[in-house]
Amino acid sequence: MGITKRSLSELANYLDGELVGDANHMISGIADLQTAGPSELSFINKESYLHYLPASSTGAVILSADFADKYAGNKLIVSNTYLAYAKVSALFESLSVVAGGIHPSAVIAATANIDSTASIAANCVVGEFASIGPGVTLYPGVCIGDRASVAENTLIHPNVVIYHAVSIGKNCIIHSGTVIGSDGFGFAPSRDGWQKIHQLGGVIIGDDVEIGSNCSIDRGALGNTIIHDGVIMDNLVHIAHNVKIGKRSAIAGCVGIAGSANIGANCTVAGAVAINGHIDIADNSHFHGGTIVTKGNTEAGVFASATPMQEVKKWRRNSVRYTQLDDMSNRIRQLEKQLKALLPTDPAE
Amino acid sequence: MGITKRSLSELANYLDGELVGDANHMISGIADLQTAGPSELSFINKESYLHYLPASSTGAVILSADFADKYAGNKLIVSNTYLAYAKVSALFESLSVVAGGIHPSAVIAATANIDSTASIAANCVVGEFASIGPGVTLYPGVCIGDRASVAENTLIHPNVVIYHAVSIGKNCIIHSGTVIGSDGFGFAPSRDGWQKIHQLGGVIIGDDVEIGSNCSIDRGALGNTIIHDGVIMDNLVHIAHNVKIGKRSAIAGCVGIAGSANIGANCTVAGAVAINGHIDIADNSHFHGGTIVTKGNTEAGVFASATPMQEVKKWRRNSVRYTQLDDMSNRIRQLEKQLKALLPTDPAE
Amino acid sequence: MGITKRSLSELANYLDGELVGDANHMISGIADLQTAGPSELSFINKESYLHYLPASSTGAVILSADFADKYAGNKLIVSNTYLAYAKVSALFESLSVVAGGIHPSAVIAATANIDSTASIAANCVVGEFASIGPGVTLYPGVCIGDRASVAENTLIHPNVVIYHAVSIGKNCIIHSGTVIGSDGFGFAPSRDGWQKIHQLGGVIIGDDVEIGSNCSIDRGALGNTIIHDGVIMDNLVHIAHNVKIGKRSAIAGCVGIAGSANIGANCTVAGAVAINGHIDIADNSHFHGGTIVTKGNTEAGVFASATPMQEVKKWRRNSVRYTQLDDMSNRIRQLEKQLKALLPTDPAE
Repeated sequence: MGITKRSLSELANYLDGELVGDANHMISGIADLQTAGPSELSFINKESYLHYLPASSTGAVILSADFADKYAGNKLIVSNTYLAYAKVSALFESLSVVAGGIHPSAVIAATANIDSTASIAANCVVGEFASIGPGVTLYPGVCIGDRASVAENTLIHPNVVIYHAVSIGKNCIIHSGTVIGSDGFGFAPSRDGWQKIHQLGGVIIGDDVEIGSNCSIDRGALGNTIIHDGVIMDNLVHIAHNVKIGKRSAIAGCVGIAGSANIGANCTVAGAVAINGHIDIADNSHFHGGTIVTKGNTEAGVFASATPMQEVKKWRRNSVRYTQLDDMSNRIRQLEKQLKALLPTDPAE
Repeated sequence: MGITKRSLSELANYLDGELVGDANHMISGIADLQTAGPSELSFINKESYLHYLPASSTGAVILSADFADKYAGNKLIVSNTYLAYAKVSALFESLSVVAGGIHPSAVIAATANIDSTASIAANCVVGEFASIGPGVTLYPGVCIGDRASVAENTLIHPNVVIYHAVSIGKNCIIHSGTVIGSDGFGFAPSRDGWQKIHQLGGVIIGDDVEIGSNCSIDRGALGNTIIHDGVIMDNLVHIAHNVKIGKRSAIAGCVGIAGSANIGANCTVAGAVAINGHIDIADNSHFHGGTIVTKGNTEAGVFASATPMQEVKKWRRNSVRYTQLDDMSNRIRQLEKQLKALLPTDPAE
Repeated sequence: MGITKRSLSELANYLDGELVGDANHMISGIADLQTAGPSELSFINKESYLHYLPASSTGAVILSADFADKYAGNKLIVSNTYLAYAKVSALFESLSVVAGGIHPSAVIAATANIDSTASIAANCVVGEFASIGPGVTLYPGVCIGDRASVAENTLIHPNVVIYHAVSIGKNCIIHSGTVIGSDGFGFAPSRDGWQKIHQLGGVIIGDDVEIGSNCSIDRGALGNTIIHDGVIMDNLVHIAHNVKIGKRSAIAGCVGIAGSANIGANCTVAGAVAINGHIDIADNSHFHGGTIVTKGNTEAGVFASATPMQEVKKWRRNSVRYTQLDDMSNRIRQLEKQLKALLPTDPAE
């Protein structure tokens, strides 16, 4: 439970930044300018925060050359402040510790292949022919199904469930409660009710993927659900069977993506968006929060569908008109026609 | 880990279909026409896929009599192609294996009643007076509360939680992370804050119900939450206390149903729909994705409420008008009145 | 498994109510007027339910003085009927039992501090330097991270995950599948993809907070996510990093709240609402179901944004007009201008 401490010279070196100030000053954490104390590091990347600088007790500030002359204290001058903050945050991470090796309470199938450098915590269960790669950490209560594989350095938080034959890439992070490989929602109607279509495909998660907590990613019906390298996903996201998500796309919380939707690369999908199935979304498409995406698009763009919030009395009057819009439109057309008949004719027409 | 193999004659027999081709040809899986190899089975149920047939390397095709003359290779002619595909998919399922009996790491209350043909995996916990029926499979980490019951052949995936006194029917499938029987959201306001209303009812899940991953189904306040036979439910669905869902209704992902809503039979609720509490939905009602259902209906129908997605610049201009709709409507009425005064009077009036 | 029984005199005393009827009549549960039998207690707080009284077989009715003369049977007269029902519901609760002390299958770190009156069920895992207070109950499969703390009398249902350094107050209830302290969704863009911002803050949950099942509450990036005393939260709620929720606010199911949103006290947020990040919501604000909240508000009020549901044929015609609203508005203005030119000039102008 020791606290990580780093000197400013170490940090400057790590960030490939220029240090102005006391090279031996020790830093043990990161905080914003308003709350940081002398042993903490801050950053400033917006003009609007400059007024916090004079009163700040921070130990040092990460900033760009543009802002360097605004602060007389210890500073780390970098080319990309926000990225530097992201990088340095890794140094002060203090996750729960999982001891190396396999905890005696874990239940590992005889045919599973566990790398000797993996860390498998209490009450994990690993299935037949599953493969756990070098440096992988399974937190307590993680279940890995038969024939599933988890590649090197991936970290899986408590109580995650990975179903059979799911493949997870390198350097991924998967948060608690997330389920990968549950059955897609496939049923054929019959006179006797819904006949289950067994979901025979799998899920392939690429490298460097982060998945939030309580997400559900279904296995393919036939073929695979695929989350490509570098995708990031927030909490409570639903990914249906045979969805594809392109490289480095970002999916915010409470998003649902229906079956066989094909999301391009470098897209951003804001919170509470719902995307219809069997559509293609172009690379670099961006969706505002709450958008209902019923059609695909072939060109990058920014899209939205939600209606603005109003005080409820106004909303009641306006929203009922929504059900009369076609009538309103027709009446406008009729008015235009009638008025045209009354107006003097333009001789140029 | 042996691969299932079936001859085409076996498959024809199983599907009650007509085989044209090599009766001894062996099939080990299912794939679509584009990717299937000689040991795989495909199906075709849409004219638009016919063009894939000539180049397909598939081992055999399931199709209807209408399409039979379109394909010269091995074929299984059936009356309902999609249903046949669903049925045959069961033969090639390859779930993680749970050994029969009770895993030594499972913690079973002394008063629990576990059928000798049930399979209870590692780290399951079964409470006092709980009942686990014949052929039931509990995957690892499943918790079954006191006095809960799980009827024959039901399959419960890893880390599912069934609270006390919940009753689950026969032949159900419940996916990982799902919680059944958590407290309904019931509180009485008081000067000292929210006073909890303890949720004394239960949950009854019928037979042949499938529930996706990370769903939450709350117990009743008084009386039960009831999911009738044959209901299917996708992932991340929220079912509040005292909801009733009629037979064979289908609930897609990310749907929320508020307390005491009474959903009829054979309804389909598309993704991201939110249904208000204390309303009745007629049998055979269908809701498009993203619909906000604030009122019940007494006749079957198809319903929707979402607004269309637009490129964000257009959306900004249009959506602000949504807050002015009542004003627009009033101005149209005023225009009509003024224009009527100007128009020659219809002598027939 | 004994059934709780209470005499009406005990109940009158507990509720501080006036008993009219048989003081020795024994009650073993609560039910509504229509289904209650002689050993059950009912309540009536709405005029519209009075017609159920004559035919009811209930053992006794909780009611206010206003209704007292409407019923001749056993009755408990109280000042606030619904609150009395809430309070009495606690007496008939029958949760799964967790034996006192630490179950032998639980895995407790050597440095964890477990109060001797806590109850820790099978397969729980408690991390280094974690603190479990007096009277706390951890149901099976709960994971408590390093340095997390759970204060007295809090009850945590099966398979909940509490990450490292999360602090949970007194008398809280947390339902199954909920995850508290997963990483906030913070990433810096870079040429090499998304650079993770390690989430160095924590989560502070106040006293008397109830959290439903399968919720996700993320830890702060820097500083804490804070849920204040007396907040209640339904299922499948997403709380992003650094969100603050004020005292006694109520958050219904399927709500998502984005990062750094600051929700006031005594707010109610109905189901499926999505709240944008970095906005302030005033105390006593109320949001209808399905509202997309993109802007903050400084004064209390009731707000909504959803569009009404329609039969799909009408909806199709109306919803397409939504994409033409700005055009419609401009055409109305044009009509007004043209018509004004035709109308006789008002001499008063």
